[in-house]
Amino acid sequence: MARVYNFNAGPAVLPLEVLEEAREQLVDYKCSGMSLMESSHRGKEYDAVHAEVIANYRKLLNLSDDYAICLVAGGASLQFAMVPLNLLTEGQTADYTNSGAWASKAVKEAQLVGKVNIAANTGKDIPTKVPAAGDLKLTKGAAYVHITSNETISGAQWKEFPKTESPLVADMSSDILSRPFDINQFGLVYAGAQKNLGPSGLALVVIRKELAERAPAKLNTMLKYKTYIEENSLYNTPPCFSIYIMMLVSRWMLKTGLENLYRRNRDKAAKIYAAIDKGGFYRGTSAPGCRSDMNITFRLPSEALEEQFVKEASKLGMKGLKGHRSVGGIRASIYNAFPPEGVDALVSFMAEFEKKNG
Amino acid sequence: MARVYNFNAGPAVLPLEVLEEAREQLVDYKCSGMSLMESSHRGKEYDAVHAEVIANYRKLLNLSDDYAICLVAGGASLQFAMVPLNLLTEGQTADYTNSGAWASKAVKEAQLVGKVNIAANTGKDIPTKVPAAGDLKLTKGAAYVHITSNETISGAQWKEFPKTESPLVADMSSDILSRPFDINQFGLVYAGAQKNLGPSGLALVVIRKELAERAPAKLNTMLKYKTYIEENSLYNTPPCFSIYIMMLVSRWMLKTGLENLYRRNRDKAAKIYAAIDKGGFYRGTSAPGCRSDMNITFRLPSEALEEQFVKEASKLGMKGLKGHRSVGGIRASIYNAFPPEGVDALVSFMAEFEKKNG
Repeated sequence: MARVYNFNAGPAVLPLEVLEEAREQLVDYKCSGMSLMESSHRGKEYDAVHAEVIANYRKLLNLSDDYAICLVAGGASLQFAMVPLNLLTEGQTADYTNSGAWASKAVKEAQLVGKVNIAANTGKDIPTKVPAAGDLKLTKGAAYVHITSNETISGAQWKEFPKTESPLVADMSSDILSRPFDINQFGLVYAGAQKNLGPSGLALVVIRKELAERAPAKLNTMLKYKTYIEENSLYNTPPCFSIYIMMLVSRWMLKTGLENLYRRNRDKAAKIYAAIDKGGFYRGTSAPGCRSDMNITFRLPSEALEEQFVKEASKLGMKGLKGHRSVGGIRASIYNAFPPEGVDALVSFMAEFEKKNG
Repeated sequence: MARVYNFNAGPAVLPLEVLEEAREQLVDYKCSGMSLMESSHRGKEYDAVHAEVIANYRKLLNLSDDYAICLVAGGASLQFAMVPLNLLTEGQTADYTNSGAWASKAVKEAQLVGKVNIAANTGKDIPTKVPAAGDLKLTKGAAYVHITSNETISGAQWKEFPKTESPLVADMSSDILSRPFDINQFGLVYAGAQKNLGPSGLALVVIRKELAERAPAKLNTMLKYKTYIEENSLYNTPPCFSIYIMMLVSRWMLKTGLENLYRRNRDKAAKIYAAIDKGGFYRGTSAPGCRSDMNITFRLPSEALEEQFVKEASKLGMKGLKGHRSVGGIRASIYNAFPPEGVDALVSFMAEFEKKNG
């Protein structure tokens, strides 16, 4: 089949040139006589990959020396645990905002570790939304404040981040590097790789180094951010091949430019939202002001029509449009690597589908 | 460069046909119009991979319904922590055998969690060896007994496993499925994938299901074996592409047959040991009776000669022969996928090198 338009929420579309280069190098990496998958994580081939991915992210995120990059096997779900295990010191409270399915998973893991204050709760609001930055009921001296920058399932996104006295921690799994942001406002940012960064099974963690000092002495080595900082994420064998793909994606992002990606992302999202808002047939599910540029969620007049919509779109090569099984509806995930032509195809299809069924 | 003989200790050589199939499918997986890296972990393409890898390992390990397979992101180093976090109930003691570098890392992580008894210690013995199965000083009612079936760095391997009353737990990272063994003797077996099973960043855990019930309620979700058992390793997004490679390797193992792999592994190892033992030039570093079939370690008369040996071998396309940086010397890692012709090439080179420098 020709390359489809891949609206998957994650694992998600990757730049075609990344896949083509990975294929080209798969069996014999840079004439080394072996695949990078077979290459030592202490050898010169992998060394170069590891150094470049970290340098590229430092550049993309504009990191000062106060911050470290950690590459951690596992996804954001493991970070839900690692954040409180490292930062929620005994006797302290962590402030969490509950903005939906992913935030509430983070809350659940923090509650297993220590005391949690829900600083704002929009988790069950309809239309779906994230809390307003000014509405958080924060704890004086909180260990940290946790937000979920983009709720992948409901399609709600923080447009402005709260200014907090305690370190701000964000799960940015589904919108990291889709727009410029000031990392200095954050103590820690983490993201599962499988949306904007690379394949699944790996998380990027950006941490203000001093925060890693809080970890209790009894915390196991692989669960401590300090280990990753001190050993440059090479204490044990890292997921080398996944990091290699992440490196190729970071190279592509640098080449494209973050401002260009942002502009392109906004344009793509705006086109679909305009198609939703045109008549009364489609109905967006997130509140104006919180509409995600990454995951665009909407409903049709009936579930039967939604099913038909997904089916017909699929036949036209537009895949992965079915909403998350917990909420139904339609979801178009259009991460950095999703091509503008795919959005045009969807918008045309939406108009036609409405004409036929409206 | 033509394909080299890859003696790397891990990440290590993979079957060429696995790499070629992965390359063939990399950009457009089974005519789905996308890479498997871009495919949903809840979609039919990945579903089939996930089901097959688990079915294949159940077959290769001859598992009864009492056992579950868990696919866990991260390597054996994370398992060093997860084992005691799940199985070392408060007030109990875990028995550990210290047989070298890897066993002592496992000990260190268990000591962070609870009470550890060192049941035997050969960690600093020269020649290197593992404890004799009959020599363990076990604790009555121990939570479990932990062994390291093969010490990758020193090249010492358990040839017979101890019979224990408490559940036997083994780190089999560097020799799993290199030989037949009776899983029913074990409560839990784990292995980082990057030696005999696939790429790095993933561990295979085989666990007697009832043991997973011990985990404390406060243990975080992604650190609990119970989560992986109940959700069939799909609670969160798994490392899909790494699991795919692991599936291709498991298919190759089934096709080759475990008995054939074992015979081939013994033959390969025996040839190199014979070359070591022939004269006084080479000197094996592990004790007879404990010599690893996977990692063959030996010394030359001087460090200068060792360096020259590695360098000349490398020029002839034999890569990764340098011993671990902590011990020096030569190490030939010859996992399942290492071809017999590579062993013949090494043995010829050893003879020639001795003739020139002996």
